[in-house]
Amino acid sequence: MINRAAFMTGLNKLEIREVPVPELKASEVLVKLDYVGICGSDVHYLEHGKIGDFVVNGDFILGHECAGTIVAVGSDVRQLKTGDRVALEPGATCGKCEFCISGRYNLCPDVQFLATPPFHGCFANYIAFPANLAFKLPDSISNKEGALIEPLSVGMHAAKQGSVTLGSSVVILGAGCIGLTALLASKAYGALDITVVDVIQKRLDKALELGATRVINAAQEDVLEQISELTGGEGVDIVMETAGAVRTTQQTPHLVKRGGTIVLVGMPPQDIIEFNFAKLLSKEAEIKTVFRYRNIYPQAIKAIAEGVIDVSGIVTHEYGFDDIAEAFDVNINRKNEVVKIVVKID
Amino acid sequence: MINRAAFMTGLNKLEIREVPVPELKASEVLVKLDYVGICGSDVHYLEHGKIGDFVVNGDFILGHECAGTIVAVGSDVRQLKTGDRVALEPGATCGKCEFCISGRYNLCPDVQFLATPPFHGCFANYIAFPANLAFKLPDSISNKEGALIEPLSVGMHAAKQGSVTLGSSVVILGAGCIGLTALLASKAYGALDITVVDVIQKRLDKALELGATRVINAAQEDVLEQISELTGGEGVDIVMETAGAVRTTQQTPHLVKRGGTIVLVGMPPQDIIEFNFAKLLSKEAEIKTVFRYRNIYPQAIKAIAEGVIDVSGIVTHEYGFDDIAEAFDVNINRKNEVVKIVVKID
Amino acid sequence: MINRAAFMTGLNKLEIREVPVPELKASEVLVKLDYVGICGSDVHYLEHGKIGDFVVNGDFILGHECAGTIVAVGSDVRQLKTGDRVALEPGATCGKCEFCISGRYNLCPDVQFLATPPFHGCFANYIAFPANLAFKLPDSISNKEGALIEPLSVGMHAAKQGSVTLGSSVVILGAGCIGLTALLASKAYGALDITVVDVIQKRLDKALELGATRVINAAQEDVLEQISELTGGEGVDIVMETAGAVRTTQQTPHLVKRGGTIVLVGMPPQDIIEFNFAKLLSKEAEIKTVFRYRNIYPQAIKAIAEGVIDVSGIVTHEYGFDDIAEAFDVNINRKNEVVKIVVKID
Amino acid sequence: MINRAAFMTGLNKLEIREVPVPELKASEVLVKLDYVGICGSDVHYLEHGKIGDFVVNGDFILGHECAGTIVAVGSDVRQLKTGDRVALEPGATCGKCEFCISGRYNLCPDVQFLATPPFHGCFANYIAFPANLAFKLPDSISNKEGALIEPLSVGMHAAKQGSVTLGSSVVILGAGCIGLTALLASKAYGALDITVVDVIQKRLDKALELGATRVINAAQEDVLEQISELTGGEGVDIVMETAGAVRTTQQTPHLVKRGGTIVLVGMPPQDIIEFNFAKLLSKEAEIKTVFRYRNIYPQAIKAIAEGVIDVSGIVTHEYGFDDIAEAFDVNINRKNEVVKIVVKID
Repeated sequence: MINRAAFMTGLNKLEIREVPVPELKASEVLVKLDYVGICGSDVHYLEHGKIGDFVVNGDFILGHECAGTIVAVGSDVRQLKTGDRVALEPGATCGKCEFCISGRYNLCPDVQFLATPPFHGCFANYIAFPANLAFKLPDSISNKEGALIEPLSVGMHAAKQGSVTLGSSVVILGAGCIGLTALLASKAYGALDITVVDVIQKRLDKALELGATRVINAAQEDVLEQISELTGGEGVDIVMETAGAVRTTQQTPHLVKRGGTIVLVGMPPQDIIEFNFAKLLSKEAEIKTVFRYRNIYPQAIKAIAEGVIDVSGIVTHEYGFDDIAEAFDVNINRKNEVVKIVVKID
Repeated sequence: MINRAAFMTGLNKLEIREVPVPELKASEVLVKLDYVGICGSDVHYLEHGKIGDFVVNGDFILGHECAGTIVAVGSDVRQLKTGDRVALEPGATCGKCEFCISGRYNLCPDVQFLATPPFHGCFANYIAFPANLAFKLPDSISNKEGALIEPLSVGMHAAKQGSVTLGSSVVILGAGCIGLTALLASKAYGALDITVVDVIQKRLDKALELGATRVINAAQEDVLEQISELTGGEGVDIVMETAGAVRTTQQTPHLVKRGGTIVLVGMPPQDIIEFNFAKLLSKEAEIKTVFRYRNIYPQAIKAIAEGVIDVSGIVTHEYGFDDIAEAFDVNINRKNEVVKIVVKID
Repeated sequence: MINRAAFMTGLNKLEIREVPVPELKASEVLVKLDYVGICGSDVHYLEHGKIGDFVVNGDFILGHECAGTIVAVGSDVRQLKTGDRVALEPGATCGKCEFCISGRYNLCPDVQFLATPPFHGCFANYIAFPANLAFKLPDSISNKEGALIEPLSVGMHAAKQGSVTLGSSVVILGAGCIGLTALLASKAYGALDITVVDVIQKRLDKALELGATRVINAAQEDVLEQISELTGGEGVDIVMETAGAVRTTQQTPHLVKRGGTIVLVGMPPQDIIEFNFAKLLSKEAEIKTVFRYRNIYPQAIKAIAEGVIDVSGIVTHEYGFDDIAEAFDVNINRKNEVVKIVVKID
Repeated sequence: MINRAAFMTGLNKLEIREVPVPELKASEVLVKLDYVGICGSDVHYLEHGKIGDFVVNGDFILGHECAGTIVAVGSDVRQLKTGDRVALEPGATCGKCEFCISGRYNLCPDVQFLATPPFHGCFANYIAFPANLAFKLPDSISNKEGALIEPLSVGMHAAKQGSVTLGSSVVILGAGCIGLTALLASKAYGALDITVVDVIQKRLDKALELGATRVINAAQEDVLEQISELTGGEGVDIVMETAGAVRTTQQTPHLVKRGGTIVLVGMPPQDIIEFNFAKLLSKEAEIKTVFRYRNIYPQAIKAIAEGVIDVSGIVTHEYGFDDIAEAFDVNINRKNEVVKIVVKID
């Protein structure tokens, strides 16, 4: 078993090196990775060396969207066996803090999350990982789809935070990877009218392909006017901001219905944004936010397996492991063409 | 029966005039009012002639916080009788729109709310009002307390929106009338640690008297620092903004705990406020808002009757009906001394 | 305009008579009915003259599942106009009691429900009905489908009471009309694994046709054993009892998962049933019940219009108005062949 | 350090023996126990050797309601130190199953619960226990009160399951230890009208002392009649069954209000009970059940510390460790005099 990992060795520098196969603890499984997706956060670390307070120090392995095949199991592992294909939920939490024991483990302050410094990610051949975070994929789900469960989980958590249910009307601002998974999730939770907004027509075409009721190209049309017209001036039940932009965040209270819900998913480029709270208050609307996800993987796997969600459509590019630097390069420099790049690990 | 009503006849002009006793519909009760409170919105209309889109046209009766005694009942009224003392819930809703039938009648677009133009208020001797909005007061509740149920309901709705429950820690920003009713409500819903913040010491003293765990005078202390220290850097479960100020609204995401809830109650003086959404997102905190209240009066009456809430402490001034102009004058010009003024109607 | 109505004139006696066209109140619409479904309750009244405390006195019009075309609108009606096709929600509630104002209007003690004595039903050419309970059908929904929204609403309310969501596993006991609408609703709310149980193979075939994951013929197989095997001994998230049978009610705590939910929909033939509460307690499972429905019609109409629910498949028989006696006769005497009979009104 | 433990050596046989002081794991604390309460389950094991599928094999230490002082901490323990007084939450869960990660850890199938075979309890001088389940007691809470947090948690979980909130009306069936903690909890969660029912007057007197609005002695009065009269025939919001009796379980659907909640806490002596489901269905009432508790200890400690709950009043008897056999004897043979016996461990 030879193990190679892709290290970020500086800003915009990636290098594949041979490393030891990780040692396996009793409660872990050793996974031979097959597909790893590139996330916006991976790109951000590579370009800027940090996200908020999380700073990359020294050589660092990126990647946290992954699936592969178990090649060894620790001595305490009962539910999984060698040969099982699994998707990994990348955050290992303490299991004991008030957040963990009350079902909100995504807020655990001691989480160890793949590719969030100081914890290495999974652009590598092998990873040893807690068995309870390795979710078995049925035959009907490929490893490539398995690697997409992570971004899908963000979209599904957004739909849950927004209480999307049968009959909901939804506006999704942003048709990037998370906007599109939010679209897939909203449909699966029962939304019957979903408008997707973006400024890149290619992404909007993808949104239509994935089931949006309609799309609005905000570069050409006035979103507030359009939604007002469509809803008789009332607004929609749920507005999801996934673009992480100032302007779209500001639009949310104008788009939401009286008593409705705004879900903020995208992290905007600046901390502080001017926002119309008077509008929010006069509608008694609420704002929910999304930080990763919780308790989603089993549900996501079932939804994909049953054909209710087809996540494969969000992949626009695929590269081999040796071309990982090119993959990141495309993600950075031809951003508008990319929804999701996956890397096939040898 | 002589009926007199106090009309706002222009900005800062009030005049008491004799008017006909209102006619009674089959589903209404005729109430001889005993106490009517002055609300911030009454003052705002008197000073500015409008609140948002609601504009006073012509002579207008203010007042919507009231209680009195039934002197006649309409032919369809079964539950109430002459002599019953009642508090009036001031918003008559359509009962048929999607908001009304789903239990969120405070969002009814066709609500007719006392002293919200074009609907006159209740600074008068007599009012005819829908019987289903007249809530009988038990012997243990005075009419003066009855008139306070309206502002108390706002505080209770804020506590409900924030899901305050046994053990909650709460920060209340603003110790005006609504801040204090939010304090009373939070305690009644089970909050065990309540910090009240204001810049006027007199109000803070009142907050302590009404049961705040502690107070912070923001004119002298750094609120963010204090709360951080008190909570080991974690923040509190629920932050309620009742001051309607820009600065306090901006403080909320810094005061709230991971996964916690911000409740915005106060309407800020400017529509648009700079707000740290990055902080909100990183905590997966939520923002709820408060527009009036719903389904609160019966619960409020029980809570006062059982002694769980003593709302009488929020009254700082009382005036006779003939002195109503003076009462408004004090409310405007000696603002810092006033929490709540009630007017005794003859 | 000639109006004819089908009167129940005694046990198992039906007679069509000419009656005046009903007068229209200001808030009502006059509807020319097109389709009316026969419900189990209609059949029960015809056979037994009563259901619980509701006793048929004198000649009585049955029927409450209906749709048709508006031929006149009252003077206060704004949202609807002549020519609109509508489905009628058959319960007119008071709009003022604690249940109505808190969004649970189906519990209103003063509801006036079509074909629940003393209120006549709608097996007639014309009915005058409150406009707020007449829901406009879009072009894509036929009147026949419109008449089915009533039983669909029961199934949808059951799914809501059970909190069926994306990924839920459900067992539905009983594949009659309500069992099948519960199936359609469960799928629409996101259930991914639905087992339908009955003793009549014809109904089970229908369940498979409508999208059940699998069916169990309880006349041939041991349901508890089968579900235990399917779920690794764990049980399912939600068990819905729609058969109204003693035995199926008794099976529910054995079929449900730890922490799961039982939804009782069917009214059993005897009030008192032996039930294993020890099993329920040891699983900390809960029991929810269903009494009609609330706030469902708009959502149901959207779901049918969007093709998420195809309710037309539950109709097994259709009769003309003049053959209504035969329709009831078939419903009673060839029960096992019937899921839903609709009557086409001239 | 000498460690002694009380072993159940057969039915109704208890014997104190010297045993080694337990070894301490890195994540554990070593606690010198001060007070241990006797629970109904302890008594049941001693008398019958089993509860359901849990069978005592060989000599067995009972006891799971306890508090004491930390005398040593494992190497990984950061939050606690020697000298801290703590109450122990007696169930150690896996932290990884679907129940644990979704906040319902009380349903963890792999829980290791003190004094539930095969896991020994804590009638001993010393116990080594996971630090995350040892909750620090503030100075204002004695160890005796600390030992009562366990039964209080059951009452608090019952109140949470029943969604008791400000203004709730509650009937509690049974005034034993759990009935009384349910009373204390209901008050703390805001219930304003609480009726406690039992057949033993002594317990009812205790209920009044602890704050019941009223009590009903079911040996002398007709409970259904009384509650019907008190509520105008409507019933109460929440009915809690804590007696674990057949008759009281059967009464619940008659006592609960339309749309109300029944909470079953007591485990009845027979698995199967005749129950009026027709009544439940006609009211659209729900049944929730209670299996132990979850996420309660920190909240309970705060509530006691703030004086909102005074749990000390439920103790009726106290014995020294050497008199533990007598303590159990009294619990069994003078049952009607006992609410809660605590044993002071040396």
